[in-house]
Amino acid sequence: MGGDHAPGAVIAGVVEAIKESDVTIVLIGRKPDIEAELKKFEYPLQQIEIVHTDEVVGMDEPATTVLRKKKNSSISLGVNLLKDSQYHAFISAGNTGAVVAASTINLGMLPGVERPAIGLTIPTLKGFSFLIDVGANTDPKPQHLLHNAQMGAVYVREVLDKPNPTVGLLNIGEEATKGTDFVKEIHKLLSEKVKNFIGNTEANEVYTGRSDCIVCDGFVGNIVLKVSEGLMESAGTLMRREIAKSPIAIFGAFLVKSKLMNVKKQVDYAEYGGAPLLGVNGIVMISHGRSSPKAIKNAIRATMREVEHDIIGALQKEIMA
Amino acid sequence: MGGDHAPGAVIAGVVEAIKESDVTIVLIGRKPDIEAELKKFEYPLQQIEIVHTDEVVGMDEPATTVLRKKKNSSISLGVNLLKDSQYHAFISAGNTGAVVAASTINLGMLPGVERPAIGLTIPTLKGFSFLIDVGANTDPKPQHLLHNAQMGAVYVREVLDKPNPTVGLLNIGEEATKGTDFVKEIHKLLSEKVKNFIGNTEANEVYTGRSDCIVCDGFVGNIVLKVSEGLMESAGTLMRREIAKSPIAIFGAFLVKSKLMNVKKQVDYAEYGGAPLLGVNGIVMISHGRSSPKAIKNAIRATMREVEHDIIGALQKEIMA
Repeated sequence: MGGDHAPGAVIAGVVEAIKESDVTIVLIGRKPDIEAELKKFEYPLQQIEIVHTDEVVGMDEPATTVLRKKKNSSISLGVNLLKDSQYHAFISAGNTGAVVAASTINLGMLPGVERPAIGLTIPTLKGFSFLIDVGANTDPKPQHLLHNAQMGAVYVREVLDKPNPTVGLLNIGEEATKGTDFVKEIHKLLSEKVKNFIGNTEANEVYTGRSDCIVCDGFVGNIVLKVSEGLMESAGTLMRREIAKSPIAIFGAFLVKSKLMNVKKQVDYAEYGGAPLLGVNGIVMISHGRSSPKAIKNAIRATMREVEHDIIGALQKEIMA
Repeated sequence: MGGDHAPGAVIAGVVEAIKESDVTIVLIGRKPDIEAELKKFEYPLQQIEIVHTDEVVGMDEPATTVLRKKKNSSISLGVNLLKDSQYHAFISAGNTGAVVAASTINLGMLPGVERPAIGLTIPTLKGFSFLIDVGANTDPKPQHLLHNAQMGAVYVREVLDKPNPTVGLLNIGEEATKGTDFVKEIHKLLSEKVKNFIGNTEANEVYTGRSDCIVCDGFVGNIVLKVSEGLMESAGTLMRREIAKSPIAIFGAFLVKSKLMNVKKQVDYAEYGGAPLLGVNGIVMISHGRSSPKAIKNAIRATMREVEHDIIGALQKEIMA
């Protein structure tokens, strides 16, 4: 039931995913709504199960309220199903704070990890990078960011298929002496303990692909994400405004449009299958609230890769090393 | 001597500025280099003075070294000239850290203000907003951000000519309960003490123009700035790559180009006359290292508005209120 276009977009994406693989998906939510949506498609029936619940979590409800009062929400049920049963992973396009809280409390943390982190695959000039954390832990200790660096590198290697990924620390200057005391302490930790740590990465290098994995605290990561989103939207609006002033430019824009749409897809992280919640003892994927069917399908595919590569085992091994 | 294209771009901008007004500019730097550049132009000679110095500050030299060892650098001399003489303002496209340090120590702070802040006029869908701080104070106390909010609002009103500017706090959610304890404390302070405080502004609203003045700490502000810069560049590169794949798109891009250049100018903050250093006891303007002649000219114009509107007096009045 999560996301701005639920359940339609979610179900359309799920149907696309099951057509491409033999994955079984459990849809958790209002059964009548789900069945009504499913009727629009033809698909292998045995690959979809439905778990009914009437309780839905709003996108802006505080996570604590959700945990206390909505024990039968699709989020709570999903996390519990993951914990108690044969299912392999949980995906939600719903309230991020609620997913993080329910996962942390009900699944528990991986031994050695204190706090969860949300990673995000972002498009770059070299393909993609992985930004961690984008909002799970907004007031972390340096140690948390060390774990995030280690977990991020494992994710890039196992799920994004890049061997020996480089790790960079998001900072306001390249030199080790730059930034706040907090960031300098993290720099020292990463220098000592993280393989392929290439030092500070400035924010203007986020999209050049300089580091395969970029580490930052959840407050800053969330700002990076949202300012990028907002800037692309505002720049798009400005472009349309300017182009509308000239018939020649309108015709030119028409000729360029299909190529610009390609770029738009490349830079729209909603197209990149979701954001893994790392550090909890289970595979949890958070999909953007505005997820399209394609984004949902991609989130399912990325989650399947996590399962196939035993990401939990790999994370555990790295943290314990 | 500051900036990537110095002294050429600086001098070209200065010449443009003096042709448009009766301002007198003192150029500080290597006299032979300055005179060689000046020879390329015709301009009213009496509006330019030259103060010679051989000492130049590198763009990446630590500010402390500059203060200790380069007492005759163009930055140190400029700040001292401002302090000791009849000059009204100091502008530099050089090493930002050195300008901040030299200004803070040699000019001193405005009574009641503890730390300086760099503000920046950024383009938005509604025209522009003012982001403060973009890097002077990366580890501030809540009180510092209150002063920044007050100073930013005064700047927007006096120099950017927007009466009753709204003030927003950059945060990762709209509600007052969102963000770190640090940000929540600032939210409370601004709610109590800042006129037209409209609460939190999320990063995806930075470029929509929701708040006339956006307050954040210098670390986050610097990240916002640089990620924006990097994203526009990377998106531009991606667009050119895609367009190059199709002759039709290349022709289309040719027809659109002049309009896109307009947008590029609108979103290129280097075009917006520089970033005022607020809180120090004197008018100091920091221009982008990559400043074009037009950016330098605009920085001079903005600085002249600061002088004309007695920005120091206005800031003082606001802080003391």
